[in-house]
Amino acid sequence: MLDARILQQLTEIVGSENIAATPQDLICYGYDATQMEFLPDCVVHPDGSEEVSRILKLANQEGFPVFPRGAGSGFTGGALPKGGGVVLVTTRMNRILRIDTDNLVAEVEPGVVTETFQMAVEKLGLFYPPDPASLKFSTLGGNVAECAGGPRAVKYGVTKDFVMGLEVVLPTGEVIRTGGETVKGVVGYDLTKLICGSEGTLGVITKIIFKLLPYPDAKKTMLTVFDSIDGAARAVSTIIKNKIIPTTLEFMDHATLTCVERRFNLGLPDSGRAVLLIEVDGDRELIEKQAGQIHKLIEPLGLVQFRVAKDAAESEELWRVRRLVSPSLRDVNPDKFNEDIVVPRSKVPDVIRRIEVIQKRYDIPIVNFGHAGDGNIHVNIMIDKRVPGELEKAHEAIKEVFQAALDLGGTMSGEHGVGLAKQPYIPMELSADQVAAMKAIKAALDPKNILNPGKMLPV
Amino acid sequence: MLDARILQQLTEIVGSENIAATPQDLICYGYDATQMEFLPDCVVHPDGSEEVSRILKLANQEGFPVFPRGAGSGFTGGALPKGGGVVLVTTRMNRILRIDTDNLVAEVEPGVVTETFQMAVEKLGLFYPPDPASLKFSTLGGNVAECAGGPRAVKYGVTKDFVMGLEVVLPTGEVIRTGGETVKGVVGYDLTKLICGSEGTLGVITKIIFKLLPYPDAKKTMLTVFDSIDGAARAVSTIIKNKIIPTTLEFMDHATLTCVERRFNLGLPDSGRAVLLIEVDGDRELIEKQAGQIHKLIEPLGLVQFRVAKDAAESEELWRVRRLVSPSLRDVNPDKFNEDIVVPRSKVPDVIRRIEVIQKRYDIPIVNFGHAGDGNIHVNIMIDKRVPGELEKAHEAIKEVFQAALDLGGTMSGEHGVGLAKQPYIPMELSADQVAAMKAIKAALDPKNILNPGKMLPV
Repeated sequence: MLDARILQQLTEIVGSENIAATPQDLICYGYDATQMEFLPDCVVHPDGSEEVSRILKLANQEGFPVFPRGAGSGFTGGALPKGGGVVLVTTRMNRILRIDTDNLVAEVEPGVVTETFQMAVEKLGLFYPPDPASLKFSTLGGNVAECAGGPRAVKYGVTKDFVMGLEVVLPTGEVIRTGGETVKGVVGYDLTKLICGSEGTLGVITKIIFKLLPYPDAKKTMLTVFDSIDGAARAVSTIIKNKIIPTTLEFMDHATLTCVERRFNLGLPDSGRAVLLIEVDGDRELIEKQAGQIHKLIEPLGLVQFRVAKDAAESEELWRVRRLVSPSLRDVNPDKFNEDIVVPRSKVPDVIRRIEVIQKRYDIPIVNFGHAGDGNIHVNIMIDKRVPGELEKAHEAIKEVFQAALDLGGTMSGEHGVGLAKQPYIPMELSADQVAAMKAIKAALDPKNILNPGKMLPV
Repeated sequence: MLDARILQQLTEIVGSENIAATPQDLICYGYDATQMEFLPDCVVHPDGSEEVSRILKLANQEGFPVFPRGAGSGFTGGALPKGGGVVLVTTRMNRILRIDTDNLVAEVEPGVVTETFQMAVEKLGLFYPPDPASLKFSTLGGNVAECAGGPRAVKYGVTKDFVMGLEVVLPTGEVIRTGGETVKGVVGYDLTKLICGSEGTLGVITKIIFKLLPYPDAKKTMLTVFDSIDGAARAVSTIIKNKIIPTTLEFMDHATLTCVERRFNLGLPDSGRAVLLIEVDGDRELIEKQAGQIHKLIEPLGLVQFRVAKDAAESEELWRVRRLVSPSLRDVNPDKFNEDIVVPRSKVPDVIRRIEVIQKRYDIPIVNFGHAGDGNIHVNIMIDKRVPGELEKAHEAIKEVFQAALDLGGTMSGEHGVGLAKQPYIPMELSADQVAAMKAIKAALDPKNILNPGKMLPV
């Protein structure tokens, strides 16, 4: 519990309309997209780096923890105030400060919603590629803090690849600028990338400078169905080896197809064991040619259906298959653990086979889909928590799924982060010396462990 | 001076054939591409992370500094043993460990020469884009440590953008892996990017995992001459705004043209005030189309010459103009300071104008060329050191050039790094709080300040 004196000081910093401590307010900021919940002692909505700095300086002086939060759409509990403290919400800082069409650069505040930003730059003919599934509500600050990905990462990369510079309030309250507005820059350590993906443990992001691209001329969507997972996986590497880097290469396994088909009856062929949703973008003539090349290249790999969208409406129709995945899953079981392992592209069939074995061993439905182009598979472990023992089985199964990814040269998380959810598994992936180096950096920047304590690294 | 006991222990670690301490050996490892020279006490050539680890542990125990070094082609003294100590040369670790054509990933040791690696992957139809001018002799470890750039960075990015993972020996001797073999990965802090560009101050790189691309189908080179710098600069932004991202957009100013023309008589038009060497790569038909589009787009901008290469031989001929720049400069004056400032693309004409003013004020020839596509200009301050007062004037002029870049939203260095050469100017670019955060990280990872001490950050 924070004492009244501290609450008074916080009120002075943000103004009485921007601080909340009623039970209903606290409940609103105590959960995220995980199924965990921890109540904070108070919620503040500062505007600007100066207010954030004053909050952090007060926190260091008084010794209370601070948990930065965007839209709270995270999948790993990175914004949850475990142990209590102050939740610092960035959503009031929601201005797009400028879009520089000459230099293809934009500067924004952290509370801007991802899609809002995308639409603003698209109006000017520009393109911000990162497209996490949460883009309609997630904030850019949260995207940067978690290093969000999305389907288009195959061709364009993840959030980090578009962050050129930041304004950050360090855990001890100093406001610094990192990086800058130029693509190149090698003066000093790369604090920008260190903050990206640090999940709010090393600083509070108060401004972001993004790199933009020209908006692609055109795109072409293809829905392809294969009679085996190996066929689909070979299709991915064959396409890329032939110098075509699609914008997206979304994968759905047989369990996923069965779910979608059972509920929505989309007419996918019975012999289909895996789907690849392929999209290419760029020059209009080039992508026409590429669509033809792709068809020819993948035809011998057990292709049982190939549909190309003729226009935007048909493209939407093909994407429907992918979009219906999440709503279909609830038919399998009410509760879901959505893990986002990554393996080298060529190891996708191996990891899927290992997951099939795990599924049988624990007798839990596991549904796999995701971004095959970069080996990032969303593994959905479907349980019913009301059934005694299911939750424990799920945790055991998750651990084995992670081990499978690691054995195949992969990682436990491609875009969701560690937060609280994956923290116990960290020693499976990172060595003690790696963790010690990370802890040394955290302690160097946050000696009193004020900012988002007890997250990411094992405690 | 290292005492005999330490030399004996170092000999035990690397073997007597891999340690040297004669005056002629020390001279060989006491210089780089700057004009500075500092003699080490001894030079070791370890092979593998275990030997590097033992050297660093010994250094921590005995308190001597260690300076990692690749080919010694750096422009800022990053590998120079100022104050004496042990130079740790990575060139024995020169194996390409594997090239994975399925996942477009390669693992190499740090001592592999950049061009050797490029040729090895190109044989397999793959592409490693970073192309620093030193690629015929620089090592990949050095490229990563400095975050080397090159002309192709406009389209493809810099070295850092291709580093997926590292094996690093920390300053205290622990061997860690950072990153991995997957494009996505968000478990723990991004130590990979922190090490990239840290100039050998945070760890010794002993293995590198690189991302590769398919080798582009074809390329097209164009030499374009403009009657003003503004025309050339507007050409750059016009091309990019029209959704064409060239592989290279190399710029040469009037002073550069005059140098090259005077010596090599290439037939550049008299009215030419700036040259852009433009290259596009990718699909053969697409780049033909793009070359046509580029011509049309830049024609109204004061274009006085437009030459397109029909084949590889003609392309080489056009590149000759750019390649002859360095040999021509010596005609201006014998000594050169090559600074590599960056400004936002649209600010290139402004910075060139400011440099003209500086040039007049100090009465020193300044020749500008470089990578206009990313605003990275190589500013060559040409002096004759034998003339009393010239060196001092050059240092004053450099400071003003840096200030001009910073005033225009840029940075002092895009690819050469800080090292010893730019260290005194750091407070012009980084705030005291930024520097303090970097120093805290350095101290956290290298508490005894063993590794490359007194570099990068102001002391």
